[in-house]
Amino acid sequence: MKKVDLIIHNISELVTVSGSNNRPRAGAAAMNDLGIITDGALAVKDGKIIAAGTTNKIKKQYRAGKTINATGKTVTPGLIDAHTHPIFMGDRADEFELKLKGATYQEIAAKGGGIKFTVRKVRAASKQELKTNARPYLHRFINYGTTTIEAKSGYGLTLKDEIKLLEAIKEFKSEIRNPKSEIGLPDIVPTFLGAHEIPDEYKNNKQGYINLITAKMIPEVSRRKLARFCDVFCEKNVFEIDDSREILESARKYGLGLKLHADEFAPLGGAELAAQMGAVSADHLMAISDNGIKQMMQKGVVGVLLPGTTFALGLKNYAPARKMIDAGLPVALATDFNPGTSFTESLPMIMSIACVMMRMTPAEALVASTVNAAWALGEAANIGSLETGKDADIVLWSAPSYKHIPYHFGVNLVETVIQKGEPQIHTDKHG
Amino acid sequence: MKKVDLIIHNISELVTVSGSNNRPRAGAAAMNDLGIITDGALAVKDGKIIAAGTTNKIKKQYRAGKTINATGKTVTPGLIDAHTHPIFMGDRADEFELKLKGATYQEIAAKGGGIKFTVRKVRAASKQELKTNARPYLHRFINYGTTTIEAKSGYGLTLKDEIKLLEAIKEFKSEIRNPKSEIGLPDIVPTFLGAHEIPDEYKNNKQGYINLITAKMIPEVSRRKLARFCDVFCEKNVFEIDDSREILESARKYGLGLKLHADEFAPLGGAELAAQMGAVSADHLMAISDNGIKQMMQKGVVGVLLPGTTFALGLKNYAPARKMIDAGLPVALATDFNPGTSFTESLPMIMSIACVMMRMTPAEALVASTVNAAWALGEAANIGSLETGKDADIVLWSAPSYKHIPYHFGVNLVETVIQKGEPQIHTDKHG
Repeated sequence: MKKVDLIIHNISELVTVSGSNNRPRAGAAAMNDLGIITDGALAVKDGKIIAAGTTNKIKKQYRAGKTINATGKTVTPGLIDAHTHPIFMGDRADEFELKLKGATYQEIAAKGGGIKFTVRKVRAASKQELKTNARPYLHRFINYGTTTIEAKSGYGLTLKDEIKLLEAIKEFKSEIRNPKSEIGLPDIVPTFLGAHEIPDEYKNNKQGYINLITAKMIPEVSRRKLARFCDVFCEKNVFEIDDSREILESARKYGLGLKLHADEFAPLGGAELAAQMGAVSADHLMAISDNGIKQMMQKGVVGVLLPGTTFALGLKNYAPARKMIDAGLPVALATDFNPGTSFTESLPMIMSIACVMMRMTPAEALVASTVNAAWALGEAANIGSLETGKDADIVLWSAPSYKHIPYHFGVNLVETVIQKGEPQIHTDKHG
Repeated sequence: MKKVDLIIHNISELVTVSGSNNRPRAGAAAMNDLGIITDGALAVKDGKIIAAGTTNKIKKQYRAGKTINATGKTVTPGLIDAHTHPIFMGDRADEFELKLKGATYQEIAAKGGGIKFTVRKVRAASKQELKTNARPYLHRFINYGTTTIEAKSGYGLTLKDEIKLLEAIKEFKSEIRNPKSEIGLPDIVPTFLGAHEIPDEYKNNKQGYINLITAKMIPEVSRRKLARFCDVFCEKNVFEIDDSREILESARKYGLGLKLHADEFAPLGGAELAAQMGAVSADHLMAISDNGIKQMMQKGVVGVLLPGTTFALGLKNYAPARKMIDAGLPVALATDFNPGTSFTESLPMIMSIACVMMRMTPAEALVASTVNAAWALGEAANIGSLETGKDADIVLWSAPSYKHIPYHFGVNLVETVIQKGEPQIHTDKHG
């Protein structure tokens, strides 16, 4: 009998999502293979999964001071949200209403709205104010079952303000790593998104802003290790294909991994660029071309789909998830949490939208929110499944099956979240 | 200084929704008039609203032993869910998945699914088992801000089993009215829906089942005061227009109010029938005709829209809410909570869907979920707005504006729910 820290046993449905250590899940068969163990158990020690198996088998091999009885519960890996913009100031509730009434992007911009509203607010805020604003949102990610988020800068658009955003992210991350820290924050993978928009002061000099990004921002971010990835908002009239390539080449030179906001509104060739540059993911992809799908597949780029954005904007052009999955492209899901176009911290909500709007199966939605999202962050060796040696990031759900996560929509079925072996929350079970 | 039980003060945005005591809100102007008081306060005594006004004014007139400081919060009337099916057994998660994969109604029925699955489970269950199953769902309604629900029978389809469902509802209601009862249940308005489906034992004898409803079920339900309304699922190949009229006429004779599941799939004339029969509401209405809208308006029938059903079925034919509102028809929103087609207890979720899918404004969605829903239950004299003399059913939201309820989607912004003057829950503020 080996001694461990924690055993979770009698799990009605233990969804391990195991067996994707070599590559992300691609194709309908692989994305529907969840590695489910009925009457399962997990042994946890030093923040890691020691073993997953049947209750009978685990109890024969391990003993622990602390046990959790999960009768009637579903247990899954902690959810991973591979695309968020959580550090900002202010909200855009009025803009949400204007869009419902049919206001165009231009009309909203003319009223001082849109992303530039958030940029003004962020520039005027201190790092401390940004952190105070972000903290409840970060707690809510955990509360809805998400143990790791990717977090982008991109509302500063000056060297100083982008650094301020990335420092705020880094400070949150240090709280998580400190065992005495406040509980309830997700782990964070930081992404530099200076190329989120062209700021007003460069509106007639886009190349000047690109030069600022490549010559000042990226070197500074890299030197101070403030980001793991560099992302670009590649879109017509913002950063076009050649602009995006220039920025990504600089980022690669400075050792950053690459991501791309690609083909959201028009099939500009963003997916193809992501493949050519060896990006870890291309995100949005509502207007992706067949060639884009093919090139991403060949280079192993994960398609990160953000259907909450399409939903919240009241649009109908969801990314062609079914076509991507059936073609064999690995797909992940993310919230795109941001105050302008997708104001939700709930990946379960995104899973519901992905099922009903993009016809993903509940199993595909779960794979896309766990192991494939881990691949989209370069973290698949550590998180995304419940396998020996991976981090003990675990969610207990008040539900008899993982299918309830998308099926029982708009409510929180999370009962307990365990992050790196430590229980973070125990929500009201009727939440 | 008058003494009251409770004062809620410093409310950043007090949304009274007051001023609809004569008729439901109809037309865009009326449905966008929320009676907002900035820096507002409420005085509560004996479970009733004594006064609503500015903090300054209320504090000059009233004092209370108990106060709640609502700085930074939005306060609205308790939400009212005018259409739910909360008493059932089992779930239909597998059916949710089959539908996503394109299974037809017939294919699901052939696998033993659909409503008849739920009917079999309910017939096999005791009243106590039904109550044990329903209790967490009822708690969750409160937890998401709903203080009153309408609850239908309709999964029994025999005299005995329909009575069993209505008795379960009545027993829950008695818990709420008992001051020593367990906290956290919504108030309930019961509806008899024996005409929900034609049970298998009558599949070649529909008139025999209609006779059972009119000659046995309705008289018994009426005699024992087990329901306030009678509803009929009026649809092609189920209860057609003439069948529905026959049942509603019987219900009216026995003193029940009338409701109708109308024009969900085809414009059968259900809206017109509801108007002719003087129903309090017609519900679903995705396929309503222009004439149906006109006739409902003339007779003051509230249109209860259930967009969660359209969403969860992955359909595109939302009810024409914009057309209805702009024509002047009073519109309410409801969850249609049920295990087959809309498995959510969250009216805020429904408000989000109503905004993005049906282009209702946040204000229209709130009116539709409060005062107009109260009208759809014949309860507008008592609930649905924060006005002197009405029940103190109040929600404090962790949000600076009511617009956040639909805007910040898929998460729970409810902080405190007060029902009949008593705080029911105080959720995790990051829920």
